[in-house]
Amino acid sequence: MIARDPEELVKLAHDGSRTALARLLTYVESGGQSQLDTAALAYQVASPYVVGITGPPGGGKSTLTDQLISVVLSHGSFGGADPFDQVSVLCIDPSSPFTGGAILGDRIRMQGHATNEHVFIRSMATRGHLGGLSLAVPDALRVLGAADFHLALVETVGVGQMEVDIASAADTTLVVMNPGWGDSMQANKAGLLEVADIFVINKADRAGVRETRRDLEQMLDLGGERAWRPMILETVATNGTGTEELWEAVVAHRAFLHDGRLEQHRRQRTRAELDKVLAAMARSRVSELVHGAAYEAQVDALVAGTTDPYRAADTLLSSS
Amino acid sequence: MIARDPEELVKLAHDGSRTALARLLTYVESGGQSQLDTAALAYQVASPYVVGITGPPGGGKSTLTDQLISVVLSHGSFGGADPFDQVSVLCIDPSSPFTGGAILGDRIRMQGHATNEHVFIRSMATRGHLGGLSLAVPDALRVLGAADFHLALVETVGVGQMEVDIASAADTTLVVMNPGWGDSMQANKAGLLEVADIFVINKADRAGVRETRRDLEQMLDLGGERAWRPMILETVATNGTGTEELWEAVVAHRAFLHDGRLEQHRRQRTRAELDKVLAAMARSRVSELVHGAAYEAQVDALVAGTTDPYRAADTLLSSS
Repeated sequence: MIARDPEELVKLAHDGSRTALARLLTYVESGGQSQLDTAALAYQVASPYVVGITGPPGGGKSTLTDQLISVVLSHGSFGGADPFDQVSVLCIDPSSPFTGGAILGDRIRMQGHATNEHVFIRSMATRGHLGGLSLAVPDALRVLGAADFHLALVETVGVGQMEVDIASAADTTLVVMNPGWGDSMQANKAGLLEVADIFVINKADRAGVRETRRDLEQMLDLGGERAWRPMILETVATNGTGTEELWEAVVAHRAFLHDGRLEQHRRQRTRAELDKVLAAMARSRVSELVHGAAYEAQVDALVAGTTDPYRAADTLLSSS
Repeated sequence: MIARDPEELVKLAHDGSRTALARLLTYVESGGQSQLDTAALAYQVASPYVVGITGPPGGGKSTLTDQLISVVLSHGSFGGADPFDQVSVLCIDPSSPFTGGAILGDRIRMQGHATNEHVFIRSMATRGHLGGLSLAVPDALRVLGAADFHLALVETVGVGQMEVDIASAADTTLVVMNPGWGDSMQANKAGLLEVADIFVINKADRAGVRETRRDLEQMLDLGGERAWRPMILETVATNGTGTEELWEAVVAHRAFLHDGRLEQHRRQRTRAELDKVLAAMARSRVSELVHGAAYEAQVDALVAGTTDPYRAADTLLSSS
């Protein structure tokens, strides 16, 4: 019988219990006091290094993720600096009703790794988390950190704002596209350009690679000078072509960040997360305010015309 | 030179100054202290009776609104009970960048009435209002009430949630459609069915009226018993056919509400508005919280790992 207390579960997860880890992630998804307790405990440990993998559906993200797992496991270290011997993967699909480890469609491919004790794969949806997936994911990443994972791959499906938000909260963000991306990604170019640390032209055995690369370079030129100019890599994930080089690019970007920038990067992320928690908590308090005698008294006053909605709201918020 | 003080402007508007009324509505759109002062003053007077006119674009809402103005002016009274001699019209188009009286496209038709001193027509957009259009509109309606308008027609463009919200905050809500509506409105049936007090099949000289009426009746049957079964009327707004009968239907619905229900109806609306103001004010307070020393101290603590985002947010919200 597995413990239910987050503190006990964190200890068990740290000692390698996957059941404890799974339960903690369920707490994170489900919201409530268990979520808050889990988040508070997990916050005390270092986050894993997070590689975000995003881009339009059908680009081959899952196959690429699968290949990256293999590359990472074969190296057994993060560019030689931080040795690690396990990989965690979060698959985020807000549109999917499945959760708790259910792996869908192309992701079944990844299941080849799922029986490997050094790999932990989890699909995430949100059921009751206070702030939805964009807050549940950072919590989940810290839980993975508490379970002694030093690396997490976060794969998102779709190119909605939330998916881009989640992927771009990574330390290194990969934007995966295919030759001829212009047609399918035109509308999302701007947003994806901003978050990409590395562009991956996957399915690079197809026609149009040169044009796609040229388009990307031109857009990067227009973007002006920046400390890290996003790299552009070509892969054929189905046969592993270019995936070693892709991992080396991730390692290079990590080295760039570690050169004094990681702290600042994570401070920005911390700030963004705190803002989201504040907004979610404020919403939740407001929804509590609308029950009770004080609220009804203000409604009475409004109906009687002795106050106005702004004064009434101010009174309620000030007394909460 | 016109006054700038809301209190003075409300007096001038009440005495018939359209310039004062226009400035008050600009205050409402623009947000800030003038908006709050205007809303507080206007809240002390009775709202006009509000007729919402909604439905998909191209249904003929503006032409119908134009006809209703004529019918109302020719009657000079609200079903004989409350005499009134002027009509106000708010045209809401969230997607339009124009505001402050700019009338677009089909609405130019209404301009025939715009020179009539008994008619006041205003397009509304939102520029700085705390809660956007869905809060600016109730404020604007009360300003119209303060300017002694006993009737307001609120026409919305589009069938987004906000437009439906705005129209359904009316005392009587007209949902305007055309014969063969099934194709264009399928997706919005449910939402529009819920808010309609009167369905208007406009362009009823076209084929398909009988089928559309039958579809509506069937859906109403499925909806089960309710105190007011929405009426279904047919109009040809371009030549005025059926618009007298439509106005009679509005008068009938108003009589139904006055039979003890208006109070309850407005209490519900008051409640909905207070909830929106609360949410908007909470959002605004959060955006203030993220500046300042207390916030930076929490970010420091988070980076140091001595707190977690939920505790940090709680601390900030509690001290505000």
